[in-house]
Amino acid sequence: MNRHEAAASLVSEVLATRRKTIRLTEPLSAEDAVVQSMPDASPAKWHLGHTTWLFDRVLQTIGVPQTSKHYEYIFNSYYNALGKFHPRPRRGMLTRPSLDEVLAYRRAIDARLADLEGSPRLAEIAPALELGMHHEQQHQELILTDIKTLFAANPLLPAYATHPAVGEVNRGGRSVGPQPLAFRAFDGGLFEIGHGNQSFCYDNEAPRHKVYIAPFSIATRLVTAGEYLAFIHDGGYERPLLWLSDGWAWVNANAKRGPLYWAMPERGSREPPRVFTLRGERDLDEDSPVCHVTYYEADAYARWAGARLPTEAEWEVAATAANTEASGNFADEEHFHPIPAQRSSPSSSGALPELAQMMGDAWEWTQSAYLPYPGFRTVEGAFAEYNGKFMVGQMVLRGGSCATPRGHVRITYRNYFPPNAEWQFSGIRLAKDP
Amino acid sequence: MNRHEAAASLVSEVLATRRKTIRLTEPLSAEDAVVQSMPDASPAKWHLGHTTWLFDRVLQTIGVPQTSKHYEYIFNSYYNALGKFHPRPRRGMLTRPSLDEVLAYRRAIDARLADLEGSPRLAEIAPALELGMHHEQQHQELILTDIKTLFAANPLLPAYATHPAVGEVNRGGRSVGPQPLAFRAFDGGLFEIGHGNQSFCYDNEAPRHKVYIAPFSIATRLVTAGEYLAFIHDGGYERPLLWLSDGWAWVNANAKRGPLYWAMPERGSREPPRVFTLRGERDLDEDSPVCHVTYYEADAYARWAGARLPTEAEWEVAATAANTEASGNFADEEHFHPIPAQRSSPSSSGALPELAQMMGDAWEWTQSAYLPYPGFRTVEGAFAEYNGKFMVGQMVLRGGSCATPRGHVRITYRNYFPPNAEWQFSGIRLAKDP
Amino acid sequence: MNRHEAAASLVSEVLATRRKTIRLTEPLSAEDAVVQSMPDASPAKWHLGHTTWLFDRVLQTIGVPQTSKHYEYIFNSYYNALGKFHPRPRRGMLTRPSLDEVLAYRRAIDARLADLEGSPRLAEIAPALELGMHHEQQHQELILTDIKTLFAANPLLPAYATHPAVGEVNRGGRSVGPQPLAFRAFDGGLFEIGHGNQSFCYDNEAPRHKVYIAPFSIATRLVTAGEYLAFIHDGGYERPLLWLSDGWAWVNANAKRGPLYWAMPERGSREPPRVFTLRGERDLDEDSPVCHVTYYEADAYARWAGARLPTEAEWEVAATAANTEASGNFADEEHFHPIPAQRSSPSSSGALPELAQMMGDAWEWTQSAYLPYPGFRTVEGAFAEYNGKFMVGQMVLRGGSCATPRGHVRITYRNYFPPNAEWQFSGIRLAKDP
Amino acid sequence: MNRHEAAASLVSEVLATRRKTIRLTEPLSAEDAVVQSMPDASPAKWHLGHTTWLFDRVLQTIGVPQTSKHYEYIFNSYYNALGKFHPRPRRGMLTRPSLDEVLAYRRAIDARLADLEGSPRLAEIAPALELGMHHEQQHQELILTDIKTLFAANPLLPAYATHPAVGEVNRGGRSVGPQPLAFRAFDGGLFEIGHGNQSFCYDNEAPRHKVYIAPFSIATRLVTAGEYLAFIHDGGYERPLLWLSDGWAWVNANAKRGPLYWAMPERGSREPPRVFTLRGERDLDEDSPVCHVTYYEADAYARWAGARLPTEAEWEVAATAANTEASGNFADEEHFHPIPAQRSSPSSSGALPELAQMMGDAWEWTQSAYLPYPGFRTVEGAFAEYNGKFMVGQMVLRGGSCATPRGHVRITYRNYFPPNAEWQFSGIRLAKDP
Repeated sequence: MNRHEAAASLVSEVLATRRKTIRLTEPLSAEDAVVQSMPDASPAKWHLGHTTWLFDRVLQTIGVPQTSKHYEYIFNSYYNALGKFHPRPRRGMLTRPSLDEVLAYRRAIDARLADLEGSPRLAEIAPALELGMHHEQQHQELILTDIKTLFAANPLLPAYATHPAVGEVNRGGRSVGPQPLAFRAFDGGLFEIGHGNQSFCYDNEAPRHKVYIAPFSIATRLVTAGEYLAFIHDGGYERPLLWLSDGWAWVNANAKRGPLYWAMPERGSREPPRVFTLRGERDLDEDSPVCHVTYYEADAYARWAGARLPTEAEWEVAATAANTEASGNFADEEHFHPIPAQRSSPSSSGALPELAQMMGDAWEWTQSAYLPYPGFRTVEGAFAEYNGKFMVGQMVLRGGSCATPRGHVRITYRNYFPPNAEWQFSGIRLAKDP
Repeated sequence: MNRHEAAASLVSEVLATRRKTIRLTEPLSAEDAVVQSMPDASPAKWHLGHTTWLFDRVLQTIGVPQTSKHYEYIFNSYYNALGKFHPRPRRGMLTRPSLDEVLAYRRAIDARLADLEGSPRLAEIAPALELGMHHEQQHQELILTDIKTLFAANPLLPAYATHPAVGEVNRGGRSVGPQPLAFRAFDGGLFEIGHGNQSFCYDNEAPRHKVYIAPFSIATRLVTAGEYLAFIHDGGYERPLLWLSDGWAWVNANAKRGPLYWAMPERGSREPPRVFTLRGERDLDEDSPVCHVTYYEADAYARWAGARLPTEAEWEVAATAANTEASGNFADEEHFHPIPAQRSSPSSSGALPELAQMMGDAWEWTQSAYLPYPGFRTVEGAFAEYNGKFMVGQMVLRGGSCATPRGHVRITYRNYFPPNAEWQFSGIRLAKDP
Repeated sequence: MNRHEAAASLVSEVLATRRKTIRLTEPLSAEDAVVQSMPDASPAKWHLGHTTWLFDRVLQTIGVPQTSKHYEYIFNSYYNALGKFHPRPRRGMLTRPSLDEVLAYRRAIDARLADLEGSPRLAEIAPALELGMHHEQQHQELILTDIKTLFAANPLLPAYATHPAVGEVNRGGRSVGPQPLAFRAFDGGLFEIGHGNQSFCYDNEAPRHKVYIAPFSIATRLVTAGEYLAFIHDGGYERPLLWLSDGWAWVNANAKRGPLYWAMPERGSREPPRVFTLRGERDLDEDSPVCHVTYYEADAYARWAGARLPTEAEWEVAATAANTEASGNFADEEHFHPIPAQRSSPSSSGALPELAQMMGDAWEWTQSAYLPYPGFRTVEGAFAEYNGKFMVGQMVLRGGSCATPRGHVRITYRNYFPPNAEWQFSGIRLAKDP
Repeated sequence: MNRHEAAASLVSEVLATRRKTIRLTEPLSAEDAVVQSMPDASPAKWHLGHTTWLFDRVLQTIGVPQTSKHYEYIFNSYYNALGKFHPRPRRGMLTRPSLDEVLAYRRAIDARLADLEGSPRLAEIAPALELGMHHEQQHQELILTDIKTLFAANPLLPAYATHPAVGEVNRGGRSVGPQPLAFRAFDGGLFEIGHGNQSFCYDNEAPRHKVYIAPFSIATRLVTAGEYLAFIHDGGYERPLLWLSDGWAWVNANAKRGPLYWAMPERGSREPPRVFTLRGERDLDEDSPVCHVTYYEADAYARWAGARLPTEAEWEVAATAANTEASGNFADEEHFHPIPAQRSSPSSSGALPELAQMMGDAWEWTQSAYLPYPGFRTVEGAFAEYNGKFMVGQMVLRGGSCATPRGHVRITYRNYFPPNAEWQFSGIRLAKDP
């Protein structure tokens, strides 16, 4: 593919990505799309406008006129370099522009993007368009997580999705019980992690660099809801010595007794919790990975289990060995919830245990704080604020989730959230010293 | 009119009132109707549902089946006696039921109300229906005040109303400048105030009872925006001695420099403030009554002006003398903002000055705390919580506003809000010791 | 007594009052005297300095030089007209000046006050000195209430007073059980209340003015702790319909199950609560008046008891009839806690029931908001901010408490606190419509 | 020294350390020692009691009876495993036990410690005694930092220390101007960091482990106050692109314009700020290291300076090369404030630049989050909660400060505070990629 073809193909990819965003918002009414459930979450309409605004800004750099001064203010998220912006906790006030107007804005920008196909200036903005596409995918995930907090706040507990998941149709009979928990050992040594910039990546994944890692073991699958329930039944939320100090304060300040979206039964009862999902409320599925846990909960569970969380370098080394980038339970399967790890086929004796669920299902909390790699540089220009300015107070998560668009994440992909974030599909993979 | 006719006429009145509610929400999109701008305000859709739920409850007392268990929970406002209810600050989470579903709920209940016309059980619930109608009118006013806070929070500053006001069409040429400020003196003595229950009133207006009032004078019109601006220019918001202690703390905690919805120019500038109204943002109209002031601001202004606020007994005695219940700038005129007091026609010498704007335009803060009248009894039954439980920490306002439906308020009508409430159309009428 | 003698006698009185302040702080260490337990309370050392500062300011008006610019800033409470002042919630940061330095400041000002006895300028400041003396008495009460909150916050639960009360020594044998609850009826009519200014009073007690009062009855004694316990056992803190709306919110926000300083037993248990007093923790004395209740609790109790609280006018009319100003359980008796009403001696048939405990024991919440009397004027000059600026959001309490210095309160005396204030010795007297 | 002698020597060391604590509190009155200036700081009296309680607990393990059940509750800081404890933000309520009683408690425990010298059970608790001694030193530093926040909150701005510093006496003439800023380059490679447990260290310093470090340079001294002032004058606190996102929010939420304890002149003025120190307020000394900066400020300054902060591994490698553990401006010199780096003597050509101020003066923020080293294990037993449970949300600081007791810190020592902590003596050393 020559450079001209590559650029044309990029425009197609961008437009295809943008159509997926629309598909994800189809189950939402205009009312669903306007309300903000909490300061951390944004209305779906705002996501639709913000992702469009980013392309609008990119187009402006090659002389395409601005669509609306108001949209500039409304749909800028946090780029101080690009001017003043509407405060994040007030995004839910924006009943105007209407959803229809925002969709028209999308169509207008999409038309201009389509016009780029033959444009001599396309190459100039191709890197920014590529960033815009990956940025749009991030917001696809946020549309799902944010609508989940909104629907969970509604006493009617509406379901976002009601049709069968793609996976359910394709998968056929399911095995009974989850894959038994095992650990796969890795030798220590000097490794390279991070992205080499041979293809698209975010600035925070680079540069590729050496790290020394001591020998470690890592679990072959995510912690299940059933295992997590055992932790709860063993007094998990009542024993301070299992928790980080901040975590214990968080448990008490919020009177936590289980993960977000678990409706715990009366204290003392052993009835199973009911769980709210994007497919409505249902009984706890013990074989599915637990998700929506905070770093505090992940860490406490690991301590209770006599293990720990992996570092991001350990995770990346293990994922590289597992080599499972392509497969996984992503948003495209439309489960919109983690599913049990399949029992692996009986492996020949002596084979290393496979690492399941490394990609998709649930983001995996690592024991690494989100900090710059050695030699880190922010991108130049308008989007310099993309990643670097968040490098304090957050922990790294790896691997993507059931709400991540397939093709968005990579083995080197670094997601990050504060330790008390719980509205993302965040789960637990255990690690151990050898 | 015999009792049968009266009851049938009540049903017509109720249905007419409910049609007016729908008319008020017509300028709103489904998106406008779902968002809650602050804990004190409710979404228009919630108002539509809540007023309907009240009639639903009334109908249930004569055996009409409940419409929806969910609506019971969602649309109860604060009646502990009627069961658990959705927390007020979370009313904006209710993207479901949709606006269409709530409008269908309204139509279903309206149909059952219409069926009552010939019903033998109509008389039984007539008092509750009448209460429901007045209750609905209160929420008509709240729909207007609440949508105003929402639109003011939108950087696009949308206008709620764009068609000419009824009053503008009818009124013809307007006099230049407001009526000059004058005071009308009243003798002291023993008076009766409160409602005698000869027709509908709220429980808090009764019983009619004796009060002794010392001689006083009361202003012939409301304080204008221009007069209030002079207070600001004279350092009104910078001089602690003009303020109640709580008021001064409120000024500082909120960095107040003018009333709600006034966009004050840079400190030092004497440019006129821009003012947000339900008809969009516009230059300050100096002749219109100031509104959206808190009790703190009303009290500080009065102190600055060498006057005070009237007590509710003084106000009621003056309003009774003024005898102007019917006329006034109410919501039905569709100004949706206070308008200047008309210069009264040259009165024959010796006539007492007329009291303008007693009804409509802006609620008038009184110096009276909202407390029970001697011998006060709450209504019996389900709606016992209607008024009495709010009798602490609030001040009485009198006279209705430009957002009040005509026919809703009475001379004896007691409205009440906390001293820091500013989103109602609340204004200032001065009083003096003789 | 001629004017010269009167003035000289005033100086003696002032100095005697100031000696009593010292006596009250004698049980306190320097450490006890410096700490601020909550923003509403002040350290005892600050009270010692502030009351002195007020006399310092008075002396300055006749040319006595200021003692310290720093003290001016530190010990001004809230007089904006007198300059900037140290923020109230930071009074507990003042470890310097030391208690010894503040006591030296007191002695220095006392010496200057003593010097006034023969001064030709004494008469000029006599009214301000009198105000200063009454002001000092108010702070004597606050020293007691504020140290009580501090000691209650200490896990050692120290006792402020350990010597026998004056009353205990004098009183001899006590009757068994409290006086039975009875109500005394009053005819309605036109009354005069308020202070006529024939002797010292605060500005808020004047002017004397007419009020019309409907017939009413008032309880012959305060509600006892035992009666209040019955309210609790009857679900008092669990039944929303008993409470004002703000009160119910307060109960829930603070998880209240009983009054301040009552250590309630486990839910379900009927063990008597332990009660923290200025004499240490002890078992609940069921016959003593309940105290440290908020307006919310007083109002809820009254509703539960089928009664209501009196208005301040009713209270004043009743107290005038009772004519018991002089006697009562005041701070001078050094009980520092309310004591049971004595059974009155068998009265001759037909005699009206006596009204016990009108003065002393516990401040009595009235159903009246703290508002200006008709014709109210603040005092002129430096102390204009004394009372008037607090006339919003508070309720009137009458009659003084076991922490009030004898001679400080009058029948016309208006104390005032917000409805959620609980650290004062505030109790309940019931009233009824006839 | 045989094992017996070593243990006896340990007792002497412990007692000597404890005497130093007393010396540090000598300038404080009982009042100074009881007040808590903010939740993060503790009263000096509490520090005196808490450090004693730790030895009390240690003694109990060999059968010495508990001194007081109350002290157990009051002086436990945060050890959930050791029972309930008094809430941290309420430590300032403890006016009882008095300072005298706490000093008596110290003497009683000291006597029991002295009795250990010949005890056969000494060896058994020697490790715990050693931990207690180092723990006591940490609290010596906190006594200084905490009293500084208290005195800064006092409008009198009292000085903690007034006698000449030991250093001032010894040091003789001071060079003019600080040492010019230079960077020393280090090659990358595989290093070992962490403590090898060959002598006392905290659990979080171990195990010694390999890390790979890329080539880097590190500044030869700390950033001075004058350099930091240039950052401020260049709009440092007004340019969002210089800040981490959380940092910028912190700047705005707190209206920050300079570091803690700097009294900034009016906006626009270039007058030098006044600075509050433990020796009272004084003009800014431009040559001294800036201190009391948050991680946010350190990071923003570094970005402005075109540099970055070092990682803790880089710092440790550099400090090991610098080999300056023993010397430095520690608390023992009694400056109680950072002092300018001395101009190094003219080094022979080709010599590497010396690294000044690595130990003492100011803790140095690193770019490393406080996380467990590979293979980290908490100590067993009662003090397992000492360090590990704080391993989230904090950044590592290295090198000790002018408030740290000499001998307390090591090159491997890891201090940690949240990124918004400013009351410690925390400063800035720059680093760069090569």
